[in-house]
Parts: sequence; C-alpha cells; structure tokens
Amino acid sequence: MKLLMIGVGKVRAAYIREGIAGYTKRIKRYLPLDTLDIKEERQTPGRLLSVVLKKEGERILAKLEGADYVVVLHETGTHTNSRGLAAHMERLLSGGKKRICIITGGAYGLHPSVIERADMVLSLSEMTFPHELARLIIAEQVYRAFTIMRGEPYSH
Amino acid sequence: MKLLMIGVGKVRAAYIREGIAGYTKRIKRYLPLDTLDIKEERQTPGRLLSVVLKKEGERILAKLEGADYVVVLHETGTHTNSRGLAAHMERLLSGGKKRICIITGGAYGLHPSVIERADMVLSLSEMTFPHELARLIIAEQVYRAFTIMRGEPYSH
Repeated sequence: MKLLMIGVGKVRAAYIREGIAGYTKRIKRYLPLDTLDIKEERQTPGRLLSVVLKKEGERILAKLEGADYVVVLHETGTHTNSRGLAAHMERLLSGGKKRICIITGGAYGLHPSVIERADMVLSLSEMTFPHELARLIIAEQVYRAFTIMRGEPYSH
Repeated sequence: MKLLMIGVGKVRAAYIREGIAGYTKRIKRYLPLDTLDIKEERQTPGRLLSVVLKKEGERILAKLEGADYVVVLHETGTHTNSRGLAAHMERLLSGGKKRICIITGGAYGLHPSVIERADMVLSLSEMTFPHELARLIIAEQVYRAFTIMRGEPYSH
C-alpha cells in the first residue's frame, strides 16, 4: 500500500514544514509516501469563493485514481480516536487497498465535489485549526497509527 | 486579566517552540501572557509513574493562586469548538477573573491532584497528540479565541 498526502498550496510556515518533514520521514519507515501540494487558486475581490474551490477541487480530483481510498479532512467529518484511526488503516492495509489519499483543504476549505469523492470524511477535532496546522496534525496521526498497529514505541 | 500557560518540561522540538512563540506574540496583543515550563521529573526504570506525576503535580500546584481560573488539558475533558472556547473566555474576562492558567501535562500525563484543581478540564480532540504539539495547538486556539471575541481577522 502507498500513501499520498495532498494539501492545497505550499505550507508557508517554515516551522510547520519542518514538523511535517519529520513525520513523513518516520511514516516512510512503514510504507511509501508521497506528498503533493495542489496549486492554490487566487482569491481576488469579487470572485466567488465557490469558483475558487471548484478550480482547486478539479485539480485535486485529477490526481486521484478510481481505486484510491480517499480520506478527506473536514469539520463535518466523523470523529475518531487515534486507536480507531489505526484500526481503520489496518483494515485498509489487510483489505489490499493499493493507495490511500489523505486530502487537506486550503485556506477557504474544500469544494463539495471533493467531499463527495471521499470514502472517509474525518474531523480532527471540534475545534477549527489552520489548514497548515491540520496538515501537521494528520501527519502526526498517521505516524502514530503505524506505531499503534505495529506495537512499536512512538519516537519523538 | 492575565494569562499563564504552564507546560511540563521544556519543549524540545525547535519547530514547535517557534510555532508557540509566534502565537504567544500574537496573544500578547490582547492581554499579558506568561509561559512557564515546570521542571520535569526523571522517569527511571522501576520508579512508579505515580510518584513522577505527583512530584510534577506538586510543582504545578505550587505556581497556582487560589483565585486563578485553571484550565487543564486532558483527554478526559470536555470537548468544545473554537467559538465555544472564545465565548467561555469572554465570560471569564467580563467576570473579572484576574488570571487564567492553562496547563498541559508532560510525556506521562498529569497527576489527578492537578485535574482536581481544574475549573475546566478541556480535551482538544478525541485523538491523542504529543504533549508538545498540544502546547502548540492550545496556543493557536487561545489566539483564535481572541480574534473571534474581537471580530478581528485571523493573521497567519
């Protein structure tokens, strides 16, 4: 199984990039991982947000394959704890899924078409996080999920 | 009103320190803020975890004053969204509380005596986060709470 982590826009905060890099490196001990920054659409005054999100959504959907298991981070999603996420990933692994794609939206969110494509819509918290921080948190949770699955110590 | 953010141990990951520093700077636009790293107790083989946590707990409790409003981050706590946290902080501000103390535990958690002292036990998510990341997340949420209270734009 491979993992593809998709975000919208480049992560601007250097410290978040550093944190994500640390977790992606650790995740790669367990499976091949690619990360992909989808080009952000410019939001200009007077431009409808739905048009911006639609463009970004089309770019995201173009990167997905029919057989992908798609996880979308969204506030409307289901809540689970870290063990639940690990158990879910373990089922996907043993079910022979070829690729899991985890998608985090941009500053303005995600177009409904992306959410509709999701096999799992996941909410990290009832709290609202900046999308860059959300990308760090999900990287940490994926790493944690593997340590839970394998019963290995969590390395800081 | 003043804010005191207490953590156990120094934050080791430089990138997390940088992120926290960015948020504390922004929080200080709104109110005086101090941060305090409580000395970690060494966990040596064979030593009971409860002894470690008790020592750390005593150090935390020694820093608190009777009139403090104490928020403790803990997985057993209540879940709230960012607007709810902002509304709660606004009530504390208008209620004339002199100081809010927000406490994040260390690698091994927190002693029950600290949780018992809490006026509010708060859970950031059903997911388990590393305590250093939790310190970053709560700093971000406190900053966000002020932008919500004041109706000001969230600056990245």
